Amino acid sequence: MSTQPKAENLTWHRGEVDRAARTAAHGHQGAALWLTGLSGSGKSTLAHRVERLLIERGCFAYVLDGDNVRHGLNADLGFAPEERKENIRRVGHVARLFADAGALVITAFISPYREDRAQVRAMMPEGEFVEVHVAADLATCEARDPKGLYAKARAGEIRGFTGIDAPYEAPEAPELRVDTGAQSVDESAAQVVAWLEERGYLAG
Amino acid sequence: MSTQPKAENLTWHRGEVDRAARTAAHGHQGAALWLTGLSGSGKSTLAHRVERLLIERGCFAYVLDGDNVRHGLNADLGFAPEERKENIRRVGHVARLFADAGALVITAFISPYREDRAQVRAMMPEGEFVEVHVAADLATCEARDPKGLYAKARAGEIRGFTGIDAPYEAPEAPELRVDTGAQSVDESAAQVVAWLEERGYLAG
Repeated sequence: MSTQPKAENLTWHRGEVDRAARTAAHGHQGAALWLTGLSGSGKSTLAHRVERLLIERGCFAYVLDGDNVRHGLNADLGFAPEERKENIRRVGHVARLFADAGALVITAFISPYREDRAQVRAMMPEGEFVEVHVAADLATCEARDPKGLYAKARAGEIRGFTGIDAPYEAPEAPELRVDTGAQSVDESAAQVVAWLEERGYLAG
Repeated sequence: MSTQPKAENLTWHRGEVDRAARTAAHGHQGAALWLTGLSGSGKSTLAHRVERLLIERGCFAYVLDGDNVRHGLNADLGFAPEERKENIRRVGHVARLFADAGALVITAFISPYREDRAQVRAMMPEGEFVEVHVAADLATCEARDPKGLYAKARAGEIRGFTGIDAPYEAPEAPELRVDTGAQSVDESAAQVVAWLEERGYLAG
């Protein structure tokens, strides 16, 4: 999150395409929808449904997913606190690049720490970071346990598992709160897209 | 470049939008145009001109630039050999994500080592990595010296400078070779776009 790059002898290269031209060409704004919530809250499922709805509307949309980014860009990182922090830092910068490119990028990471999310927000222009709390509660997520991870965490086979023996710091003032414990995936995805539409994100 | 992530307990999440649906929605293919060449060869200038031409045609295009990526995602990296390698590894993964999202992403990094470029090529599906040798020769680049870096390198103020006291390994079989020493930026950019058009990248 440093604004002072380690590498010297850098100059900013001014692009030929400014943001207004990009938005006009694409017909929608660029932004990062930052989904945060417990394991099993339905972040990835919601992200992929929203992506489909946006692409069907002709938007440029893409999901950055905790699972698949960790196979590539962040394959060198584990789940220790500093590694989680670096994971979120890198994903934040990639999301920033996608938003700058004019995409609606949807990230699906637990991202349990307020400070880490605040740092991602701080690196993006006003209005481009949209924090979405995917707010199924712990009992609901643990009852679902789609990957069997809560069972392993309760059995002590996984250490530092968010919600069990590591904290989840819920957003205090997210742009949007989606109760995936009380409504269907379709309802939740429609809620997100309606929010974007009302705020003008889907207009060029 | 490891295919074995360090983090355990990962599963691949299958998206709802496949590549064909994405290409049809956008009207063009996703790919990474990987520009490689000496400092001063005109990579960034060419990248931004190609980006503009593609956006004017309604494509989703974006430049990942050596200078601006290093202010964000790779602000923790310098220019030592291992740091250059990690720089290219991360940029390669970001380019892969953009191409997977259906974008035409244009990267402008010296990327002097064949092995590093080969590793980026290997992480992408066949046909999505398009190596473009921006082939102004050293004498031309040094005569231009737009950032005054060759002068500093000759004076010993910068160590490990590509072309002076660090190697540049030119591509042996790039998809495209652009002689920016002999033709104008407009001519070079038109050459790149014509190549993309002939190969079908600009059709959905």
